[in-house]
Amino acid sequence: MSELGITVKKSEDISEWYTQVVIKSELADYAPVHGCIVFREYSYAIWENIQRYFDERIRELGHKNVYFPCLIPESLLAMEAEHFKGFKPECAWVTIGGNSVLSEKLAIRPTSETIIYALLQKWVRSWRDLPIKINQWCNIIRWEIKSTRPFLRTTEFLWQEGHTAHENLEDAEKEVFDILGIYRELMEDLLSIPVLLGRKSEKEKFAGAYYTLTLEAIMPDGRALQMGTVHNLGQNFSKVFNIKFLGRDGKYHYAWTTSWGISTRLIGALIMVHGDDKGLIIPPKIAPYQVVIVPIFYSNEEKENVFRIAHELKSILIREKIRVMLDDREWYTPGWKFNEWELKGIPLRIEIGPRDLKEKTITLVRRDTGERIVIKSESAISEVKKTLDEIHSHLYNRAKGFLKENILTVKSYDEFKEVITKGGFVKACWCLKNECEERIKDETGATIRLIPLNKEEIFSKCIYCNEDAKEVVYFAKAY
Amino acid sequence: MSELGITVKKSEDISEWYTQVVIKSELADYAPVHGCIVFREYSYAIWENIQRYFDERIRELGHKNVYFPCLIPESLLAMEAEHFKGFKPECAWVTIGGNSVLSEKLAIRPTSETIIYALLQKWVRSWRDLPIKINQWCNIIRWEIKSTRPFLRTTEFLWQEGHTAHENLEDAEKEVFDILGIYRELMEDLLSIPVLLGRKSEKEKFAGAYYTLTLEAIMPDGRALQMGTVHNLGQNFSKVFNIKFLGRDGKYHYAWTTSWGISTRLIGALIMVHGDDKGLIIPPKIAPYQVVIVPIFYSNEEKENVFRIAHELKSILIREKIRVMLDDREWYTPGWKFNEWELKGIPLRIEIGPRDLKEKTITLVRRDTGERIVIKSESAISEVKKTLDEIHSHLYNRAKGFLKENILTVKSYDEFKEVITKGGFVKACWCLKNECEERIKDETGATIRLIPLNKEEIFSKCIYCNEDAKEVVYFAKAY
Repeated sequence: MSELGITVKKSEDISEWYTQVVIKSELADYAPVHGCIVFREYSYAIWENIQRYFDERIRELGHKNVYFPCLIPESLLAMEAEHFKGFKPECAWVTIGGNSVLSEKLAIRPTSETIIYALLQKWVRSWRDLPIKINQWCNIIRWEIKSTRPFLRTTEFLWQEGHTAHENLEDAEKEVFDILGIYRELMEDLLSIPVLLGRKSEKEKFAGAYYTLTLEAIMPDGRALQMGTVHNLGQNFSKVFNIKFLGRDGKYHYAWTTSWGISTRLIGALIMVHGDDKGLIIPPKIAPYQVVIVPIFYSNEEKENVFRIAHELKSILIREKIRVMLDDREWYTPGWKFNEWELKGIPLRIEIGPRDLKEKTITLVRRDTGERIVIKSESAISEVKKTLDEIHSHLYNRAKGFLKENILTVKSYDEFKEVITKGGFVKACWCLKNECEERIKDETGATIRLIPLNKEEIFSKCIYCNEDAKEVVYFAKAY
Repeated sequence: MSELGITVKKSEDISEWYTQVVIKSELADYAPVHGCIVFREYSYAIWENIQRYFDERIRELGHKNVYFPCLIPESLLAMEAEHFKGFKPECAWVTIGGNSVLSEKLAIRPTSETIIYALLQKWVRSWRDLPIKINQWCNIIRWEIKSTRPFLRTTEFLWQEGHTAHENLEDAEKEVFDILGIYRELMEDLLSIPVLLGRKSEKEKFAGAYYTLTLEAIMPDGRALQMGTVHNLGQNFSKVFNIKFLGRDGKYHYAWTTSWGISTRLIGALIMVHGDDKGLIIPPKIAPYQVVIVPIFYSNEEKENVFRIAHELKSILIREKIRVMLDDREWYTPGWKFNEWELKGIPLRIEIGPRDLKEKTITLVRRDTGERIVIKSESAISEVKKTLDEIHSHLYNRAKGFLKENILTVKSYDEFKEVITKGGFVKACWCLKNECEERIKDETGATIRLIPLNKEEIFSKCIYCNEDAKEVVYFAKAY
């Protein structure tokens, strides 16, 4: 088992630990292409669960799924200058189609605002055409020069990108906060990962946005991870793309647009946040399998009886919509199976052995705590449900505790420099000047992750320039 | 309404009719990129219904969804010579990544066999690792030099591609016929389009396949449309990619692989087959909305009562899992709405007006026949279900009748040349020689669409060379 299991402790070498977990749990594999991975069935099933949840949530708010082309002509991508400046260095360019060199090169979408707006310009005529609320699930290419890492930073990734157009600023603001709320619930309730919400600084906002909202989590090594972003694009793009409508007042107005996305990076986050030295721990609500049943027997007669009970239990749990797998492979020992499913992070294991048959019990083993709980078979449904809920809460609360412990407040730059090397979010006061933000980044590697949504009380001068501060902000080194 | 509705008859100019239907029904729009379209919400919802159906069917057989990178290095694509020869002329090539010219150019996947097999080579070790049954939903780029047409032939399209590896030929054969069966049911039961099944000739089979199975439909202009293909790749690819496993016999064997796909082309087929001079007719089982309710009223009091009943009816139908929409827009007349939903092809319209209130009735209007049926409100559920079933059967049977009428048998090449200009499938005897097949294509534009699965009795010499025939085959001009 040694080379099949994880050979390094998470606390000692998180980078090597992460890679081993990803590959050995069969979530992903490296592909023979620069910075790309294969999403194997185990990670893709997690992604499908995210898709199902999010699709349902946004459908309730009237969003519709669509699909736009993956190729964007350079001239179209270049229409909004800031946007082009931001994305150009990351584009993969198609220059040959079939046997011909193209007259204009085409970017594989690094994001789809420009090609979507080229069409909205045609579709939006009157206030009656608004709001337009569309979403697409698709692949994205961003040519990474930083070192890549499965899920967290890959040249190709999968995401959803929502794009909406509204009559006025109020409607656009309602939209971005609605989506921010859904993202938060997805991350906290489904992935069991607590997040901080806030606004990005001017320097860190989306290229071309009016403002960007962000959800940030903390990783076990103290680095921040941006989990998703929501952009209020104001009228910036609609002016460039001439998205105008005849308003209720009989006059023409530019539409107010928003865009927002979450990606397969979320899978990287849940690996990082919840996993332990044995491998993955997948939060119950997102797990492809929530329960694995492992039969234990020593004779053929025992085998028959144990399997009968195991199959019955599986059927009962499936009827209760619990995602359950019965590991009936006969060429592996129970011990081998325990190790495999612990590596793969199935939240709850059920063991059924000869003694359980006699005593009408089953044994639950929690992946998060290792706790063994012997229960009466007749209370299986309620106990399994309760235990899955407890595992979710335990994972969430553990991560929440870690997040809280890793938000520190500083009043001076000396203090800042010392604290930031240890990782975590560092709360500090800032004057809003770009220059201070940039120097801090150059000198420490830390960026402003967010400005809290509810303005916090200023408690010092700007930590960098010592002039009057305007905002309390959260710095961190980030993935 | 004139410029909103379809201005040309399907029987007079099917090409212009098709384009108008696609654009005016808001299924799709042209994108500012060579041969690409935007899948608007209405067509994407059809695609999602296809996905849901197919995912469930293949999951029952143990297939799992995955995702492989969209970029394939040229050297990898070139490993199987026939395959490369077949796809190279259709590839879009990425030659620049970020700010660098790449040392090797990358194709955007025209299909994914090569990149998938590069990984299967790592994953397959023992017979216990088999079968591998994976599927992905993704975008595909094939640089089209022929003229493109929305859904039917576009540079980028969406599809599913299934890829499996097996221990032996028998298992691979079972797989391809299982999938062929699911495809057929999807096309006939869901899309109401009858298909002919068969094998492709050596010339027409997938580049690198052992053999290819195909499902072919007929379009109203008499041309054939390939609806889906299923490839038994034999050991061709596994030998090239060295996919070997230790068998139950203790010896190493090459795996037997298959691949199969259906694409958004199916949406083009249903437009073509079912639509009429008023626009789309979407088959009930695949329709995003199966029923539209249009309230009719002349006074405010009537309005209130009509809307109350309409909302009640909507809730009742939703509880029965019927996809229903209530058109409550107040700025359009009922007549305007009738035209719009007829253009969009919603299979069944329900009108509720003041007289219906008095008499406790509702009026059903079938999109396929235009028939009006006044029914008692209390039998709404059963009547709606029955009528939707009848619409499906009527659409299917009408298409089936057309297919039957358009299969003609010929015994000589003179006869063949005359019949083939009128369109339809032409049954003829063939000697199996490549040369005859190629000359027929050059001289008439017709290709062998399929060789029937059950060998049919030879009834003449080869129509081209007059030597002994070996197979009865179906020729047609195709999209």
